[in-house]
Amino acid sequence: MSYKTAILGATGAVGAEFLKILQQREFPLASLKLLASSRSAGKKIPFGDEELTVEKVTEKSFDGVELVLSSAGGAISKKFAPIAAAAGCVVVDNTSAFRMDADVPLVVPEVNPEDIKNHKGIIANPNCSTIIMNVPVWPLHKENPVRRIVVSTYQAASGAGAAAMAELAEGAKAFLDGREFTPKVLPHPAAFNVFCHNSNVGPDGYNLEEAKMVLETQKIFHAPEILITATCVRVPVMRAHSEAINLQFTRPITEGEVREILSAAPGVRIVDDRQRSYFPMPLDATDADEILVGHIRRDISQPDGCGIEMFVSGDQIRKGAALNAVQIAELL
Amino acid sequence: MSYKTAILGATGAVGAEFLKILQQREFPLASLKLLASSRSAGKKIPFGDEELTVEKVTEKSFDGVELVLSSAGGAISKKFAPIAAAAGCVVVDNTSAFRMDADVPLVVPEVNPEDIKNHKGIIANPNCSTIIMNVPVWPLHKENPVRRIVVSTYQAASGAGAAAMAELAEGAKAFLDGREFTPKVLPHPAAFNVFCHNSNVGPDGYNLEEAKMVLETQKIFHAPEILITATCVRVPVMRAHSEAINLQFTRPITEGEVREILSAAPGVRIVDDRQRSYFPMPLDATDADEILVGHIRRDISQPDGCGIEMFVSGDQIRKGAALNAVQIAELL
Repeated sequence: MSYKTAILGATGAVGAEFLKILQQREFPLASLKLLASSRSAGKKIPFGDEELTVEKVTEKSFDGVELVLSSAGGAISKKFAPIAAAAGCVVVDNTSAFRMDADVPLVVPEVNPEDIKNHKGIIANPNCSTIIMNVPVWPLHKENPVRRIVVSTYQAASGAGAAAMAELAEGAKAFLDGREFTPKVLPHPAAFNVFCHNSNVGPDGYNLEEAKMVLETQKIFHAPEILITATCVRVPVMRAHSEAINLQFTRPITEGEVREILSAAPGVRIVDDRQRSYFPMPLDATDADEILVGHIRRDISQPDGCGIEMFVSGDQIRKGAALNAVQIAELL
Repeated sequence: MSYKTAILGATGAVGAEFLKILQQREFPLASLKLLASSRSAGKKIPFGDEELTVEKVTEKSFDGVELVLSSAGGAISKKFAPIAAAAGCVVVDNTSAFRMDADVPLVVPEVNPEDIKNHKGIIANPNCSTIIMNVPVWPLHKENPVRRIVVSTYQAASGAGAAAMAELAEGAKAFLDGREFTPKVLPHPAAFNVFCHNSNVGPDGYNLEEAKMVLETQKIFHAPEILITATCVRVPVMRAHSEAINLQFTRPITEGEVREILSAAPGVRIVDDRQRSYFPMPLDATDADEILVGHIRRDISQPDGCGIEMFVSGDQIRKGAALNAVQIAELL
């Protein structure tokens, strides 16, 4: 069994990671088509021993294709994912366009793989911050249901795309040289600064990224009753997100139980050396498939013993986007 | 009235800020003596139109001195603050050496100025992250007692001193040039990375910085019953700390009430433009006297209406250390 595959948004940061992961995991490709906007059409991209030419995406692009890995922005997905699905493809879509549709499964393979079978041509890949939180929280939730989550994120520039990563480097150079620098991709200077996530702020004061972490987690866990609040913050890191996660469980839980559960959990690597103050760091999470979890401790502000604090890092482009999508495709 | 003043630790990052602030605020100096370890003795430091020579601190250094502003590390303070106090000085100490002593007032002037009068020669300046949290939380707590705080920090390199700031710049240059870089001051690479605070981790899993935020806040607020948990994280920022603060109050509270209280609170500046996603940022807090507060919203994970989320930034060297100490001296 092998699949006629297309990558939509092949020239972006996640597109490049799709290509890397398909090779690394020896994904069974019958053919591979690279699709992008007209701006990138004609670009040549090496893939193994071959060189593939990026084609402009059109309504005809999906004829004869079986699987589409899509990460080309919400508007493009909104238009082309239904066309691809109608042409018989299964689309694994990395944008937020369809995530909250009741008809569309929203899947983290370590959490809710069984939801995939309900797809009607489109499967949504969750937001990167959501995936990175869900992989380590789910195995704990299964043992002792989570009642409330307070999460603060430390998000890399990659979440805003390859251009934002380049701008972070440019801005850092300017800062070090004492030069003025006006950002164009991000709304605020990224280098040597942090700022609340630059997505639109809703009437309740939460920005879109924060709202995604709340609503997507409730959908993926099939647990609309979990109370979640998030503060999403951009930090000057290239490509791995970190999160400080405060959990309130239904019943008391010990540090030891958390370690035992997470040691056996898929997609998780415990990094928790108190002696050396060595905990998850984005530089260590870069290019890793696993979510690093550490600084695990009983929350002293929950005297009933139901609270746990932990700190996690995960590669935003990899597990936060491309890897999760390819894992979904593998489950198909 | 003017005071014979000495700065202990005059050559560090906070020492330099002491000199700047004494001039900016036209602090009534009868004389000014700069003290440091033998390593820095003999250094010349400009101060207004004069040039002052750094002297090596000895047991005799404090004779004839009335006020000591100290920021020379815990061990130096432990040794010399009692000597200075015995010589008749009032010592405002910026280290953690005396903060939790029952005999030593721990003071944020906007919060508990009245505690100063109980001093026995030493007044402690709180930890920078504690000060930056306490200034905006106290006025809210006075109106509606805070029951629980969940805080995650985004701490600048300056908290680890001037050498750490230089190392962050060096490390960033190396990263951008693709060169290997081994940090010497900090335990982990600071540039384009984040890591859990590098203070010792206690048996409960909290590091010292986190424990300080908990215990110092309870002491300053005279409220040992407040439940507090903290995750302290170093980010690649030069000199201003940020914090995501999740609050649980005793009674329901609205966003509007929080804004009204904070608008009138001393030492606070509201920066909360949802339209432009413009919230507190460390680059804006740099060199500011106030703590910037924004991204204020009702916490949707507290359905009883008692929860508030907010994001703050404050200059670690200034309000987090030197300014707070000079404000204490002004109250004397």
